[in-house]
Amino acid sequence: MAGKGVLTPQSEDFPRWYQDVLNKAELADNGPVRGTMVIRPYGYALWERMQAEVDRRIKAAGAENAYFPLFIPESYLNRESDHVEGFSPELAVVTRGGGRELAEPVVVRPTSETIINAYFSKWIQSHRDLPLLINQWANVVRWEMRPRIFLRTTEFLWQEGHTAHATRHEAREYAARILHEVYLDFMESVLAIPVLIGYKTEAERFPGAINSMCLEGMMRDGKALQMGTSHELGQGFASMFDITYSDSEGNREYVWQTSWGVSSRMVGGLIMAHGDDDGLLVPPRLAPIQTVVVAVRDADGVVDACHRLADALVAAGIRSVVDDRTETGFGRRATDWELKGVPVRVEIGPRDLEQDQAALVPRVGGEKQTVALSGVPARVSSMLEALQERMLTEATSWLDSRIFEATTVSEVQHAATTGFARIPWAELGPEGEATLAKDAITVRCLQRPDGSLPNSSEEPDLVAICGRSY
Amino acid sequence: MAGKGVLTPQSEDFPRWYQDVLNKAELADNGPVRGTMVIRPYGYALWERMQAEVDRRIKAAGAENAYFPLFIPESYLNRESDHVEGFSPELAVVTRGGGRELAEPVVVRPTSETIINAYFSKWIQSHRDLPLLINQWANVVRWEMRPRIFLRTTEFLWQEGHTAHATRHEAREYAARILHEVYLDFMESVLAIPVLIGYKTEAERFPGAINSMCLEGMMRDGKALQMGTSHELGQGFASMFDITYSDSEGNREYVWQTSWGVSSRMVGGLIMAHGDDDGLLVPPRLAPIQTVVVAVRDADGVVDACHRLADALVAAGIRSVVDDRTETGFGRRATDWELKGVPVRVEIGPRDLEQDQAALVPRVGGEKQTVALSGVPARVSSMLEALQERMLTEATSWLDSRIFEATTVSEVQHAATTGFARIPWAELGPEGEATLAKDAITVRCLQRPDGSLPNSSEEPDLVAICGRSY
Repeated sequence: MAGKGVLTPQSEDFPRWYQDVLNKAELADNGPVRGTMVIRPYGYALWERMQAEVDRRIKAAGAENAYFPLFIPESYLNRESDHVEGFSPELAVVTRGGGRELAEPVVVRPTSETIINAYFSKWIQSHRDLPLLINQWANVVRWEMRPRIFLRTTEFLWQEGHTAHATRHEAREYAARILHEVYLDFMESVLAIPVLIGYKTEAERFPGAINSMCLEGMMRDGKALQMGTSHELGQGFASMFDITYSDSEGNREYVWQTSWGVSSRMVGGLIMAHGDDDGLLVPPRLAPIQTVVVAVRDADGVVDACHRLADALVAAGIRSVVDDRTETGFGRRATDWELKGVPVRVEIGPRDLEQDQAALVPRVGGEKQTVALSGVPARVSSMLEALQERMLTEATSWLDSRIFEATTVSEVQHAATTGFARIPWAELGPEGEATLAKDAITVRCLQRPDGSLPNSSEEPDLVAICGRSY
Repeated sequence: MAGKGVLTPQSEDFPRWYQDVLNKAELADNGPVRGTMVIRPYGYALWERMQAEVDRRIKAAGAENAYFPLFIPESYLNRESDHVEGFSPELAVVTRGGGRELAEPVVVRPTSETIINAYFSKWIQSHRDLPLLINQWANVVRWEMRPRIFLRTTEFLWQEGHTAHATRHEAREYAARILHEVYLDFMESVLAIPVLIGYKTEAERFPGAINSMCLEGMMRDGKALQMGTSHELGQGFASMFDITYSDSEGNREYVWQTSWGVSSRMVGGLIMAHGDDDGLLVPPRLAPIQTVVVAVRDADGVVDACHRLADALVAAGIRSVVDDRTETGFGRRATDWELKGVPVRVEIGPRDLEQDQAALVPRVGGEKQTVALSGVPARVSSMLEALQERMLTEATSWLDSRIFEATTVSEVQHAATTGFARIPWAELGPEGEATLAKDAITVRCLQRPDGSLPNSSEEPDLVAICGRSY
């Protein structure tokens, strides 16, 4: 518990605790242009690991990566009316290029439906070209009035998938497949964050979508964070960009489309879903550093022993680093690693070395253990596995304990002070939704009573999950 | 040789051949905003493989990835006078954001020295914070008047390394280490492209650098392509951004800096260094698809056998795909794979299957071979290894055969019609360089007579490598 006092306690001021973690764990800084951020190496390492895990799952779902331009002609955005209305207030516009005023200003992409669909129109001719499954990793820009690092920034990093299918059914199935096999699986099995899935209400839908599916996580302050979305776009973009295919009888048909994305906002979700008053806690499967071998002080052979042990840990497939900065006090360094949420700290001091052993300290949920050096990799491995499981279990029971059944708007309002409310959508309806909005409470998603994904937001018996959100 | 006639021959019109390859191998398209490009899945897969190989080497050299904002305040660029002079004509400027005119316009990064060094100034305090070794993978924008896909585009993808060191010697050593251990090693051992290394002359130096090192490849038309650069920045940015550290005696000193980068331009280099009249040729270590198993036609069991064989190839660590699009003629598909430069094509038809064998067709340098199915993975493996070696050997002897010794400007001019000229820098000098510039011939680099990297561009006895370039 060396971190005590370094951070503002969560219970005292959660937003300030979050800022403290960003600074002290060296995750990110504000950029010089309002709303932008600098992602520091440790914060970026978290994002890189997220990218690798999500990318692998996207490729397993059959999509291929590509890259489309940052700059979109203003006229492209104007083609889809809901879409342009949704994004216009947030656009960054380049009006000067190469030292001259541009004849047509260009928009910095807020999302890439328009530019990608302009190319889908060229590439798709026949039913044999379908489905077309494209993903891109990119930065996007949405001018942000109330920025908060990782959660809402003017520029953020994300992946955006864009697909075209022959039928509405296929498109919906694919959007739901991404939601389950890529996003839900990643969030639960790697991030150890349980998420609620469902459809957005019409009020919360992506501009241009006919249905928006989402995954909502609960942060440690009881607020919701939208962790990812997967949209059915219907045929809106297809008709605006003239994306048609000839079916097996030679008829021209419009394609059915999807788009879906997760972003660097997940780093914020990770911090707020698992962090405690000692700092970040990174689930082992995600952790860029799963264990740090700390030389307690610079005595005979200690530093060498640390490097040998780290080599053995790496050979056992454990992402490990050595901390041999013995000119800095041990306590200060221990605090740093706790702040960074490294799952297991291994300590070697002169006395440990004499006895051919090391001390293993889990970041949470256990006492310091002394283990023979030769047994360290196996023990660390089992500690990491146990922690991964424990983190999901704890986050799940905590989430469950903060979902309250409600039947009236005022019960929802009460529940939303500490967590989520669950209310039949038939009871709440768009009117109740509008009332809640005045209190900054939103319907996070509509799901079936058993928590599963409906086939559309029009199914009867849906339940609305309501809460405050980031 | 199924590809004959699909592409304009190189000897007829090399630029048109290049365009044809981009289109027919589905590598990239022009974007809607002048100078931008759409990187299609196969082109992007080449870039992804380059990224993975370069990133691994950068990390091995001790640098960590981070991410800095796309938008830079205009005032930041103005701080370093050479730097801003060099980049001003190429800037894209955002003047509207969130629906309003911006009080201070922001520049879309053309490179990130200024914004990164503003943070180095915050992060570096003590000699213990040095060296600081940062890399970022990002898109950058330089308004381009004569765009050509992959080679010169308004937006391109790259990595940019930025480092700070305690001494000039350390900075130079690190810039040279990146040049050799990251870039040169990658280009020769993975891309199979031999490169000449050296220093840029003062005329060709990066704006803001005190020395620019570079790697120059020769394309199949005898022109040079700058494949990467590594700069010593001296203390210019350090003094403008006030980046100082306290040394062990407590004195404040300015840091010494480097920056270095390679970009998506390497995809263009790959195409032009190895392509032939049948299309692209991708070196096996880079190839996203090392072998394609083609079902000749849809007869009993053929498609299944192709998938089983591809599984065996993948299990043997060979990146493999199946082409079972038997509704398309075999010849057309064979041409496609040749265009894409897949190193080895494996064909299975009904007769092959009967005899439990497959035909192996190398993209270049060999005849079709018939091999028992069980022996295919081992044979493909050895073919890939042989091809990797052969490609570097051939490219090297071809490069060597096109470097001509010269002692006068007119000999350089003559040599540059088909390749590079090599002339003592003491003979040529800045005056000769200026004369050559009128013919669009430039000094690509200054190197020692034995081809090695000098310690600076001021060493005596340096040789100038001259040529036309992209």
